[in-house]
Amino acid sequence: MITVLCGGVGGSRFLCALAAVVDPARITAIINTGDDDWFHGVYVSPDPDIVTYALAGEVDQERGWGLRGDSFRWLASLARFGEETWFQIGDRDLATHLHRTRLLRERWPLSRVTADIARAFGVKVRLLPMSDDRVRTVVETHDGELTFQRYLVQRHARDAVRAVRFEGAGQARPAPGVVEAVRDAEAIFFAPSNPIGSIAPILAVPGIRDAIAAARVRRVAVSPIVGGRSLQPPAAEMMAGLGYEVDAAGVATFYAGLADTLIIDETDGARAAAVAERGPRPVVAQTVMRDDAARRSLAAAALHAAGVAP
Amino acid sequence: MITVLCGGVGGSRFLCALAAVVDPARITAIINTGDDDWFHGVYVSPDPDIVTYALAGEVDQERGWGLRGDSFRWLASLARFGEETWFQIGDRDLATHLHRTRLLRERWPLSRVTADIARAFGVKVRLLPMSDDRVRTVVETHDGELTFQRYLVQRHARDAVRAVRFEGAGQARPAPGVVEAVRDAEAIFFAPSNPIGSIAPILAVPGIRDAIAAARVRRVAVSPIVGGRSLQPPAAEMMAGLGYEVDAAGVATFYAGLADTLIIDETDGARAAAVAERGPRPVVAQTVMRDDAARRSLAAAALHAAGVAP
Repeated sequence: MITVLCGGVGGSRFLCALAAVVDPARITAIINTGDDDWFHGVYVSPDPDIVTYALAGEVDQERGWGLRGDSFRWLASLARFGEETWFQIGDRDLATHLHRTRLLRERWPLSRVTADIARAFGVKVRLLPMSDDRVRTVVETHDGELTFQRYLVQRHARDAVRAVRFEGAGQARPAPGVVEAVRDAEAIFFAPSNPIGSIAPILAVPGIRDAIAAARVRRVAVSPIVGGRSLQPPAAEMMAGLGYEVDAAGVATFYAGLADTLIIDETDGARAAAVAERGPRPVVAQTVMRDDAARRSLAAAALHAAGVAP
Repeated sequence: MITVLCGGVGGSRFLCALAAVVDPARITAIINTGDDDWFHGVYVSPDPDIVTYALAGEVDQERGWGLRGDSFRWLASLARFGEETWFQIGDRDLATHLHRTRLLRERWPLSRVTADIARAFGVKVRLLPMSDDRVRTVVETHDGELTFQRYLVQRHARDAVRAVRFEGAGQARPAPGVVEAVRDAEAIFFAPSNPIGSIAPILAVPGIRDAIAAARVRRVAVSPIVGGRSLQPPAAEMMAGLGYEVDAAGVATFYAGLADTLIIDETDGARAAAVAERGPRPVVAQTVMRDDAARRSLAAAALHAAGVAP
C-alpha cells in the first residue's frame, strides 16, 4: 500500500499522477477535511470532492475544483433571496453535497460517505478523510478570525495570516483505516499540498503524526512551492504568515522530522543545500504537472525516491 | 380583502385570473400544505411554490409547476448515487427549497418563510400556508398507504383510493392570519382545486371550517371537474375513490354547507339542477382558463357571483 497525505488541488493532481503509473487500488489517500463547511444547509467537503472528481477524470481542470462543464443555475437563483453566493457550488456538484448531507443526517460517518461517493464516481484509489470528527481550520488575521473558505474563497487570501488553528482537532480521532494506512504503508507521501492549510490539519489529529514518525518506510514530501511561489494559493501566504521562508527550504523546515526526502523543483536546485540543512534529503525533479508526461515523470521520481517499484 | 382557498395548479391559475382584474394586494390566498414533503434533505412545499411562481409570471405554464426554462442537471447527477429521482426538482427551483429549508432550520415558521419567498419573487398577493404545523396528506390505497407525492407523482394516481387522511391536522393550528383572512373577507372563494387533495386538508385544520361557516359574506366555489373529468389529476380519481360523483354535482356535494355558490362550466350546464339539489346555487360560466380572455372572464364571473366589485 502506498499512502498519500493530501489536500485538494495539488493533492488530487499528485494522486492522478501516481494512479497513472501504479495500480490505483494500491493507493490510499488520507485527505484534509479541515476546510469542510456548511453552506446553505449542505455539508461541503472540498478536498475529498476535488480528489474524487479528479481521479474520476471529471474535475474542472482549469478551476481545479468542481465538475467539468457544470453550470451554476441554482446559485444564481439563490441570490434572489439575498443569500451569500461567494462559495461557488455547481448544479451537478450540489447533488454530491445533498447526497452527502442526507447520509450524514442518517448518522453515516464521513469516512463511509466519502467511500460511497468515490464508489459512485468509479474511483479505485481508497479515499479516507483524516477524521470522522469535525475539525475546522480557522485562520487568525489582524481583522479577526476567518473560516478557511472565507479566508481563501471569499477574501482571496488577501488578509495577512497571524496564526492558524484546527478547531476540534485535539478531540478528533483518525478515521477508521488512517492509522493502519500509515502503519502498513510501503511508502508514505506528502502530496504537493499546502503544508499549513492541508497537511498540518491532518497532522493535528492525535495519532497520525506519531504513526508517521514511527513508520519504518520512506516518507517523501513534494514541495508545493516552486520558484518562491505556491502553485495554488494560499500555501505561500499561509507559510509567510507563520514565519516560514516561502521556498523549498521553508517547506523543508515544515517537514523536518516527518519526511526523510523532499522533492523540490528543478528551478529550485540552488536551494538543495538549504533543504538538506533543515533535515530532509533533497531530490531535484520536474514537479510542475503541466501535462501527462510531466505527471508520469514526477510520479516516477517520487516512487524512485521512496524506493518503491511501480 | 378577497380570500381564496386553494391548492397548486388550478389554484394558481385562478389567483392569476383574479389578480388580473383586481388589485393583487386585495387578495389573500390560503394554500394547502398537505402535499409538503422532504426530498433529499430539503423541504418542498409544492402548492405555495406553484402559486408563487405563477403569480410572479415565472411558472412553467406547460407543466403547471416549477420555473419556466429550468434545467434538471443536479437531479440527473443525483441519480449517480442511486437516489430516487422521480420527484422532479429543477436547478433553479432547488434554490427555493434550500432557502426555505435553511430558514425552517433556523426556526422560522412556514408562514414567514412563505412570505419571504413570495416577496423575493415580487408577489403582491398575500400568501398564507394553511398552517405552520406539519400536516401530511396520506392516500390509502388497496396496496397500502402513500404520501400524496408518491401517489400522484411517482405512481401517477393509478392506485384506487380507499380513503384520504390528513396526518397531524387534528393538532394543527391555522397559520397566523388565516382565520382573520376568512373572518374579514368581503368574499371567500374556493379555487378550482382538487376538493379532496387540496381543499379538504385546509378544512381539516381546526378553526378554518368553522370560520368559513360563520362568515356572513358570499362563499363561491369553482368546480375543478369539467365534462366529468378533472382539469388536473388527481381530483377525479380521488373523488371517485371516496364515493363522490365525478361531475359538477359531486363537487356540489363536497361544498354543501360551505359554499353558497358553485360556478360550473358551460359544458356542464345540464347538471345545474343537480348542483342546486345538493345545496349550492349553480352559476354557469366558462371556467377553462385557456387564455387571458378566458381567465378574465372567469374572474369577472366569480367576482359577480360573489357580489364584489373589481
